[in-house]
Amino acid sequence: MELIGHFINGALNTEHTRTQAVFNPSLGSQTKEVALAGKATVEEAIAAAEAAFPEWRNTPVLKRARVMFKFKELLEQNAEKICQLIGEEHGKIVHDAAGELQRGIENVEYACGAPEFLKGEFSKNVGPSIDSWSEFQPLGVVAGITPFNFPVMVPLWMFPMAIVCGNTFVLKPSERDPSSTLFIAQLLKEAGLPDGVLNVVNGDKEAVDTLLHDTRIQAVSFVGSTPIAEYIYKTATATGKRCQALGGAKNHAIVMPDADLDNVVNSLLGAAFGSSGERCMALSVAVAVGDEIADQMISKLSNEISTLKYGPYSDKNNDFGPVITAQHKAKVEGYISSAEQQGAKIVVDGRNAAPSGYENGFYVGATLIDQVQPNMTSYKEEIFGPVLQVIRVKTMQEAMDLIDQHEYGNGTCIYTRDGEAARYFSDHIKVGMVGINIPLPVPVAYHSFGGWKRSLFGDLNAYGPDGARFYTRRKTITQRWPSTNVREGAQFSMPTLN
Amino acid sequence: MELIGHFINGALNTEHTRTQAVFNPSLGSQTKEVALAGKATVEEAIAAAEAAFPEWRNTPVLKRARVMFKFKELLEQNAEKICQLIGEEHGKIVHDAAGELQRGIENVEYACGAPEFLKGEFSKNVGPSIDSWSEFQPLGVVAGITPFNFPVMVPLWMFPMAIVCGNTFVLKPSERDPSSTLFIAQLLKEAGLPDGVLNVVNGDKEAVDTLLHDTRIQAVSFVGSTPIAEYIYKTATATGKRCQALGGAKNHAIVMPDADLDNVVNSLLGAAFGSSGERCMALSVAVAVGDEIADQMISKLSNEISTLKYGPYSDKNNDFGPVITAQHKAKVEGYISSAEQQGAKIVVDGRNAAPSGYENGFYVGATLIDQVQPNMTSYKEEIFGPVLQVIRVKTMQEAMDLIDQHEYGNGTCIYTRDGEAARYFSDHIKVGMVGINIPLPVPVAYHSFGGWKRSLFGDLNAYGPDGARFYTRRKTITQRWPSTNVREGAQFSMPTLN
Amino acid sequence: MELIGHFINGALNTEHTRTQAVFNPSLGSQTKEVALAGKATVEEAIAAAEAAFPEWRNTPVLKRARVMFKFKELLEQNAEKICQLIGEEHGKIVHDAAGELQRGIENVEYACGAPEFLKGEFSKNVGPSIDSWSEFQPLGVVAGITPFNFPVMVPLWMFPMAIVCGNTFVLKPSERDPSSTLFIAQLLKEAGLPDGVLNVVNGDKEAVDTLLHDTRIQAVSFVGSTPIAEYIYKTATATGKRCQALGGAKNHAIVMPDADLDNVVNSLLGAAFGSSGERCMALSVAVAVGDEIADQMISKLSNEISTLKYGPYSDKNNDFGPVITAQHKAKVEGYISSAEQQGAKIVVDGRNAAPSGYENGFYVGATLIDQVQPNMTSYKEEIFGPVLQVIRVKTMQEAMDLIDQHEYGNGTCIYTRDGEAARYFSDHIKVGMVGINIPLPVPVAYHSFGGWKRSLFGDLNAYGPDGARFYTRRKTITQRWPSTNVREGAQFSMPTLN
Amino acid sequence: MELIGHFINGALNTEHTRTQAVFNPSLGSQTKEVALAGKATVEEAIAAAEAAFPEWRNTPVLKRARVMFKFKELLEQNAEKICQLIGEEHGKIVHDAAGELQRGIENVEYACGAPEFLKGEFSKNVGPSIDSWSEFQPLGVVAGITPFNFPVMVPLWMFPMAIVCGNTFVLKPSERDPSSTLFIAQLLKEAGLPDGVLNVVNGDKEAVDTLLHDTRIQAVSFVGSTPIAEYIYKTATATGKRCQALGGAKNHAIVMPDADLDNVVNSLLGAAFGSSGERCMALSVAVAVGDEIADQMISKLSNEISTLKYGPYSDKNNDFGPVITAQHKAKVEGYISSAEQQGAKIVVDGRNAAPSGYENGFYVGATLIDQVQPNMTSYKEEIFGPVLQVIRVKTMQEAMDLIDQHEYGNGTCIYTRDGEAARYFSDHIKVGMVGINIPLPVPVAYHSFGGWKRSLFGDLNAYGPDGARFYTRRKTITQRWPSTNVREGAQFSMPTLN
Repeated sequence: MELIGHFINGALNTEHTRTQAVFNPSLGSQTKEVALAGKATVEEAIAAAEAAFPEWRNTPVLKRARVMFKFKELLEQNAEKICQLIGEEHGKIVHDAAGELQRGIENVEYACGAPEFLKGEFSKNVGPSIDSWSEFQPLGVVAGITPFNFPVMVPLWMFPMAIVCGNTFVLKPSERDPSSTLFIAQLLKEAGLPDGVLNVVNGDKEAVDTLLHDTRIQAVSFVGSTPIAEYIYKTATATGKRCQALGGAKNHAIVMPDADLDNVVNSLLGAAFGSSGERCMALSVAVAVGDEIADQMISKLSNEISTLKYGPYSDKNNDFGPVITAQHKAKVEGYISSAEQQGAKIVVDGRNAAPSGYENGFYVGATLIDQVQPNMTSYKEEIFGPVLQVIRVKTMQEAMDLIDQHEYGNGTCIYTRDGEAARYFSDHIKVGMVGINIPLPVPVAYHSFGGWKRSLFGDLNAYGPDGARFYTRRKTITQRWPSTNVREGAQFSMPTLN
Repeated sequence: MELIGHFINGALNTEHTRTQAVFNPSLGSQTKEVALAGKATVEEAIAAAEAAFPEWRNTPVLKRARVMFKFKELLEQNAEKICQLIGEEHGKIVHDAAGELQRGIENVEYACGAPEFLKGEFSKNVGPSIDSWSEFQPLGVVAGITPFNFPVMVPLWMFPMAIVCGNTFVLKPSERDPSSTLFIAQLLKEAGLPDGVLNVVNGDKEAVDTLLHDTRIQAVSFVGSTPIAEYIYKTATATGKRCQALGGAKNHAIVMPDADLDNVVNSLLGAAFGSSGERCMALSVAVAVGDEIADQMISKLSNEISTLKYGPYSDKNNDFGPVITAQHKAKVEGYISSAEQQGAKIVVDGRNAAPSGYENGFYVGATLIDQVQPNMTSYKEEIFGPVLQVIRVKTMQEAMDLIDQHEYGNGTCIYTRDGEAARYFSDHIKVGMVGINIPLPVPVAYHSFGGWKRSLFGDLNAYGPDGARFYTRRKTITQRWPSTNVREGAQFSMPTLN
Repeated sequence: MELIGHFINGALNTEHTRTQAVFNPSLGSQTKEVALAGKATVEEAIAAAEAAFPEWRNTPVLKRARVMFKFKELLEQNAEKICQLIGEEHGKIVHDAAGELQRGIENVEYACGAPEFLKGEFSKNVGPSIDSWSEFQPLGVVAGITPFNFPVMVPLWMFPMAIVCGNTFVLKPSERDPSSTLFIAQLLKEAGLPDGVLNVVNGDKEAVDTLLHDTRIQAVSFVGSTPIAEYIYKTATATGKRCQALGGAKNHAIVMPDADLDNVVNSLLGAAFGSSGERCMALSVAVAVGDEIADQMISKLSNEISTLKYGPYSDKNNDFGPVITAQHKAKVEGYISSAEQQGAKIVVDGRNAAPSGYENGFYVGATLIDQVQPNMTSYKEEIFGPVLQVIRVKTMQEAMDLIDQHEYGNGTCIYTRDGEAARYFSDHIKVGMVGINIPLPVPVAYHSFGGWKRSLFGDLNAYGPDGARFYTRRKTITQRWPSTNVREGAQFSMPTLN
Repeated sequence: MELIGHFINGALNTEHTRTQAVFNPSLGSQTKEVALAGKATVEEAIAAAEAAFPEWRNTPVLKRARVMFKFKELLEQNAEKICQLIGEEHGKIVHDAAGELQRGIENVEYACGAPEFLKGEFSKNVGPSIDSWSEFQPLGVVAGITPFNFPVMVPLWMFPMAIVCGNTFVLKPSERDPSSTLFIAQLLKEAGLPDGVLNVVNGDKEAVDTLLHDTRIQAVSFVGSTPIAEYIYKTATATGKRCQALGGAKNHAIVMPDADLDNVVNSLLGAAFGSSGERCMALSVAVAVGDEIADQMISKLSNEISTLKYGPYSDKNNDFGPVITAQHKAKVEGYISSAEQQGAKIVVDGRNAAPSGYENGFYVGATLIDQVQPNMTSYKEEIFGPVLQVIRVKTMQEAMDLIDQHEYGNGTCIYTRDGEAARYFSDHIKVGMVGINIPLPVPVAYHSFGGWKRSLFGDLNAYGPDGARFYTRRKTITQRWPSTNVREGAQFSMPTLN
């Protein structure tokens, strides 16, 4: 069975203390295993990154950017293979993987603009004949720790920006679907990146803790669940590092009485069930303002849901695939059952899914739950599965209060035709990413990604302009030149200034 | 004896669990006492700030900025009184206090430009008919914890920027010299700030810990010593807050063989002994490259030092005043003695200073030490007193290595006439604020302040552009309007786009 | 009779070749006369500005900005007097003059932020050890030519920005109401501006042509009518200058069927009749989409118009005052008559206005005209009087086509509650300043002002960020330091980069 | 004989009123002829561009940028062919053509960052519940007129930026070497550009005047000689267009007594003789401060010049090739002769060059002239040939005065090791592009290109950030939503803002 390893200093290796099974969730069977790096292997990666730093930080930014231009070309040329690798180990349908890849490539495109976004600020004459300017210098070795649900996109949020800013990088991707991540790291080498600038180590908590405690690591970017994000943030900062740790979500859509209901239904389907709901921006709660719109919406949704197809990643006709593991399938189904037990109404039930020919796959069918209440377990926690819950409220303010009182504040959306409602909502809601008739308001790569409340720990968001600031350290230089007689030396008359 | 209290919700109060003596260091005698806030008082301040937030964040930024315009006027009109209050409790000479105030006012001037620096980014057509933009919204209640050495300037680094960004603020200034800080807080009310937007609580660790653990506090800015900065950073982040914690320093000047020695000597005197060296940007180590320049520099310096005057803050003829406390005087003298014992040469000895008529004041005379070695205690630690130490090296690289190996990386400077040496130094040195022939390279208010290594914990610097980013939270809105028939309703032909 | 003169090199003078009467339009009588500068006087002003340039451009920007901080204070302290001077010579009601002044002060406030907006861009390592940065340096002597309708605000759009950027300035304000302009120029001197940096010359075409042809003038900013703007642009550019020339307008509001009609009517009244319609952003055409909303709007408007009061500037109860001259009164009334003759319906007729006690004043009453057609003279030309015309169309697209086909493209507005209509309108309409439910969408001082089509000649708008760019010249420096042995001279081992 | 035509609406055509010979300057013989477009053909190109505009301006910027990413790839893949085409018709050596192409590609790379540099500014709450933002919208159809000396690079300064900003383009390149320009236009179509977005017309004054007078053209960018630049600027602006017209140059290097002479000589050779001096940034005057450095420099220079090789473009061993035409060869030689006649000393004489086998080519050898005086014709005018003139002065100030008094202000350079001299020079010199020890300080693509004085007419420089501003029109939207009861409609309690 293939043993997936690490990519350190430009070469693959399979050092490990332990290994872990890698599954094909569409089939429900193990297909590979992955080497879990021990402390020594992680330190080897850090050492490689540290050694590569001095030359890389001195490489002119235009040259660093050109590696990203080439990387973009290679990602596009290898798109099919990348999507295949994602599908096999994650389970998402090929067209969904293509969307993930595209979003990732957009971050590479943004990184190509580094000569622009790395410009410092120059001030002439901050005092008489004194100039001052800032430079945004790289930090050194930085680390990224990324989740299973976007094995290509989330790493691409991080390392292209970090690297184009002049840093060297150690990435610890998810050990559940490591192959696509490893493959794109090799493409970056092919694009011209010097060895050691990007290193990938697979591993578990031992690898993570090694990164968090090593003082050579200057910064940590993390995307995952909130409990882990909180642990990462506390631990990384306790060793003096800068850290941005993105956690979980519970993304609500408010459906106003004036909403365009066809648009609501069509866009909610993708936002709730796409990638089996395993997205931190998945739209998992629809808050209907008034019973009339609620009833209409539920009726239309249940009709549409019945037409959705799920099954293996490789069949493009499927709308979504399995969840990541058997354990996760059980967990998602448990949330559905708990909602049922706590009084909600299961309108469409996705439990016990077993598509023909793929009975062992980790499938959960699209599920729609009505009459959800804020105190139910399925509402308070992040399900991360293909489950859309509906809450009914009487007013928009009640809907906003619900959202603001929830632990998470990643994304949210309002469906309305009305300018004033949209503006009031986007101004006041305590959520970092807001959609107006857009259910998945993931910022484009030239903006930055981040939630509020317990969805993000840190002050700078991921990628885009904030990414550039996170991966650089400000240096401010103030300069005055003493008169040296070089200028006046051979001069017989007083210089005039003009 | 006057009891100095707090400024909460627009009013002074003197609630306290304990009190602490406030001294006039020039005389060495207690003149006032200060109320130390208990948990309840701090929470009262937080509650006032929280209550003031909704209205203040909704106030148009132009109106918020106008409070800062007026604040600047009032600071200028009350300059004499402010400097007097600083001098009485801190001990710095009136002209030095005036410099401190001026630097503080510059931050208020920068805050007046909030309408410019709070602009978000707007992107048209991120997709077909989809727009996206970012807003930099205030965080809510934020806290500042500031040191004794700049009781006016360092608070002015923080609260004008935080407040003009729409936040409300709880400031815990140094309890050793609280009067000037309290006074400027009242001026800001006079300038039109609504009650509760700025609150000042005096206190000690109990007050600090209350701020750090209260979940209503969204962010903490700190300036002080590195051990406390590290504690603040760990504790604030462990409760999920954003934090910037600025710590100690050991600022070196490299004196190159081609330096303009008169300029070196003149500027070093102020940089090393001004404010008795109680500045985190004080230039405390001169690294001479070659014995020839070292000998010349020491000769000139010792001549000049003999002409420096120290004494009470109120006499403008003095160059510097006492240190802050009797304990600190003993500590500074202890460092001098340790250097002596460890083999350095005390060229000018400032121990046992007792200016006539002020024998009880906490004075330490200007001290010059030669032959300092990197392993001496006086080199490894921050002295925070009027002590200039000289290290001799053979090469510029050796000098740079010394600096890079030191724990701190706040400020540094090179004296040279040579473009190439300056450029190499400023590019490569691992220090956040770099001077070229400028011994105190404090960034102007429209740049940002921050050191590297263990001189700063966090990713965003203090004040200036980074201050604006630190005190705001990014919100990204993505918007698409569904066709609603409002536009096309009364329309008989297809609209053309142009 | 008082002879109003010039302000050259810090002093008033009354040199003239000719003079011209200055009226009090509220009374209809001459009250003063103004000196018209000949070529020699204008050249004296230019020479003063040129002489003042070298020192002023070398003055650190923070110091230049502080003059603006003080200027703001003085403008506020002298507000009553300034408004009185505006009212006497222009005729606008005191509260309207106060609004003008406030908008002007906002530009001074923006100018205070020059240290931020004058920052250049710094790029490290554009090549190996090569750095490059830009500086935005002042141009030298620049000129402004401003109209009668905003004798304080439009000059304040120009000279504070030009001057804070380091230029020196020659202003030729309108000779019809020169006193307020001259007065604020003197306040700027009082605020600390060195003599010669700002010079004001009153005059007519001779003065203008002297400015346009003098090669010492580097740039010309103009606001006035389109034929003159076009002349200014052609002439200034033909002598190699940069030029921004803002011309006339015909600002349309589209009133959609879903508009909030009370809001429409209330806001149109001020936008159409405020300052007697003598504003380049006056809303002079309402385009109603559908007869139903048209009829309702006209009914409500005619009721409200009957309650409007006009009369002398000094009576705060008046809504608007006279127009600027007897000739202009006749011209405005001529447009009304032409509309009548060409078939429009005069709903409210403001001709032959003669408020009791002010029968000789240059008054035109608020006029409402329905059934206006695109080919009527009153529609094609700018009236610049208190005349609101209504055009009825069937579709929003028809309304947009009307606007796009008009010669001018200064401001426009749509009244709707609908997000999609607003977004389509603001995206596609060929007008520079667009309001959504805002009839006078004058950009705030921290944005920039400018129309499209024949409402602006040039590429950079007035004031705000574009103002800063217009008043500066980019200089790009690229720097490499040769190895000089200063750094390596005393060095025995190879330097490492880290 | 091949007839080179135009590229209009995605297709080649050879419409013409007249034709003109195209030479191979290395051989001195005609190889092709070029169609000169009459008015009708130019108007056909304009019409194509106008028709393509609506759809292109609506294409999301990310998609427009992706065409540029692909264009970059194609330029790199076709580099050899492009350089061949340049060499054949222009004469520059292949490696020089490769440098030209590389510089051009850098502008394409910058254009790929359009999503970042096209961001507008968003201001929340410019008044209560009123927001305002700016959009940088394309102008429509814009034109570029480019010179023979960089048939690829200068067009690439213009159309990638204009097009990525959403404009459509008509390019009139030099009719002397049209093939490479036409070829890259076709590559851009291959990269995915819709037909009509970029059009290329070859022609002469008739074509130029058609572009200048057509009111559908919104903006004109020009690079060429100063008399033509002035004509273009006057004519384009007289028809209300925005215009940036870059003209001639006379670029001086000051050689200070402390300069690194080897660096001076090595870098001057390329800067003076590269591309036969046919560059607007060619370094054509060396100003030596003091006779000592002058003598040394001339001695070294004349030695080195003797080793330079010139000959046909295709031989990589050559340092430079022929000039563009026989007429130009005669003109350059005329300048050398005039200098001789006016008293200068011809140190190395490049007249009558006739490399073996290429005797009919338009060659001028590298020429060095000493003892040049400011009143000589060869100093006052731009030679645009391989001629380096030396002026001797006594002081740096004298050197700076010479530069400042010259008509042109494109580029300049100082050679020194001294920080103070460099800073004084770069601050005060009246030249737009300044080198410190860099003889050809052409700004990188992410900065902007432009001279001062009569080297540039207009206010915005070419390419980079200024290019983006030049090719866009600011639109400022101010928005307030009236309460519509949509939000409050179903609401029973008052909303709170937080």
